[in-house]
Amino acid sequence: MSLSSIKYGILAFLFFTLHAKAQQATGHKQLQGDVVTIYSKILKESRILYIHCPAVDSAQPDKTFPVLYLMDGESHFDMLAQYCDYLSRWDVNVIPAMIVVGIVNTKRTRDLTPTESMINYFGKTDTATVSWMKPSGGNEQFLHFIQEELMPYVEANYKTSAFKIFAGHSFGGIASINCMLTHPGMFNAYVAISPSLWWDNEYIIKLAEKKLTKGSVLNKIFFYSDASEGVRDTSTYHSNLLRFDSLLASRKIAGFDYKYKYYPTETHMTEPVPAYYDALRLIYKDWTPAKNKKR
Amino acid sequence: MSLSSIKYGILAFLFFTLHAKAQQATGHKQLQGDVVTIYSKILKESRILYIHCPAVDSAQPDKTFPVLYLMDGESHFDMLAQYCDYLSRWDVNVIPAMIVVGIVNTKRTRDLTPTESMINYFGKTDTATVSWMKPSGGNEQFLHFIQEELMPYVEANYKTSAFKIFAGHSFGGIASINCMLTHPGMFNAYVAISPSLWWDNEYIIKLAEKKLTKGSVLNKIFFYSDASEGVRDTSTYHSNLLRFDSLLASRKIAGFDYKYKYYPTETHMTEPVPAYYDALRLIYKDWTPAKNKKR
Repeated sequence: MSLSSIKYGILAFLFFTLHAKAQQATGHKQLQGDVVTIYSKILKESRILYIHCPAVDSAQPDKTFPVLYLMDGESHFDMLAQYCDYLSRWDVNVIPAMIVVGIVNTKRTRDLTPTESMINYFGKTDTATVSWMKPSGGNEQFLHFIQEELMPYVEANYKTSAFKIFAGHSFGGIASINCMLTHPGMFNAYVAISPSLWWDNEYIIKLAEKKLTKGSVLNKIFFYSDASEGVRDTSTYHSNLLRFDSLLASRKIAGFDYKYKYYPTETHMTEPVPAYYDALRLIYKDWTPAKNKKR
Repeated sequence: MSLSSIKYGILAFLFFTLHAKAQQATGHKQLQGDVVTIYSKILKESRILYIHCPAVDSAQPDKTFPVLYLMDGESHFDMLAQYCDYLSRWDVNVIPAMIVVGIVNTKRTRDLTPTESMINYFGKTDTATVSWMKPSGGNEQFLHFIQEELMPYVEANYKTSAFKIFAGHSFGGIASINCMLTHPGMFNAYVAISPSLWWDNEYIIKLAEKKLTKGSVLNKIFFYSDASEGVRDTSTYHSNLLRFDSLLASRKIAGFDYKYKYYPTETHMTEPVPAYYDALRLIYKDWTPAKNKKR
């Protein structure tokens, strides 16, 4: 029997056991999500969290799980919880089972932007009396809340391992990059889906130019992407991503495992579907069930 | 104001309203799924169904929804329910809200294979005393169950529109193609993710050769795909898909809107994540909210 026959022998066995398991199904388990409210002294307000925890395996009651901290919880929590469940299933098994913490927004612009700014998407000063851009610039406080209040809560109440991921879309994308540049120790991996690099005259690109000095070390995994924004019009959305990508390449950062992916056929709002999937696959590309203590 | 400025004015407005909606969030709605058991006289057994129905819009109480009938309900129902919910959200809105009916397996090989066969994946006769291949060849009966018992149940109990999709993976893939070839009127769109074209000496390819006569008409949408199966070994998985794809091209079927996609970096089990997404986007590629009665 050749090696490939053995491989397909195993495949045939998996087919068989898959069917056997399927035949035992008696009901439908919905995705589990705790809804938790915690009061933040730092932000001076209550915050709602959606927390998905893998089913406890009675054979491994002390097993711990990496934690994915996800911004825009109300938008993408179901998607990430479903991806993590499916991809960690015994018969798929390409990532470890994970805890997903979806942070629900209160004042999104305030929490996810790194600077106070009234310069809008078009590069003009927003002159609206009641502007959606106000308040802004509270990302440092928000990261402080995550580090000082949210992480201790999650670590005290769930079976967490040391590996942590921070993921966001749009403003959540710049929040993720801002955290990586200013508090790299907080997470092991960062995800930025269509980060709003236009914010405040490309503040994040300038910050990266300053922080990522040539030949420095950053032992992080980083996935970033954009979609059709700025392609069919004159906005700088896509060219900003290309600039940012060139910058990272030019700095030759040691230990930095990063990937940029462009989704020209997706919109700003459909892109999270393929991009969050690709981000998870990147983060765990070297992971195998046998090495599951590593990440 | 140029057209593109207007477009981004709308985008900025959407951002604002998105934030406003987000700020009203007070709790987490889990994916809804009814668990229903119906007794099938045709199959002489009870069948479990997972049925996801979009939230009722009080402004449109009589609105109806397309129905996605999904094989391997226990494996892929959560994924499809989540995709349909996310992609039909008001701020994503690239497909209509849909009812998803996940059919849970009892005897998977029996229900999803078109012929009785003991020829295994390697083209050899399976000689095991208790073979996972037995019983097989019950797909015609299973389709009869769907048409005569399942569809009437769903249509009597949910607000269904006329548009129907049939989707499956692996054996579910050949079941979908078998239905399209033998009962094309049952559904408007067919999805076959990594169909097991190897079944019974490529029975489905031979059936397609016979049924799809050159220049005939088939007003259906059809998505099919495969992953890395058969690439790193000597199996015919991928070459079968290429043969099938060439066959469809050569027959020049009028009205037939089909797409083949190959995912060489995915496995048999990870492929459903990108492929079901791509299938939904293909089926609704011409859909817009204004045309939502069409499909």
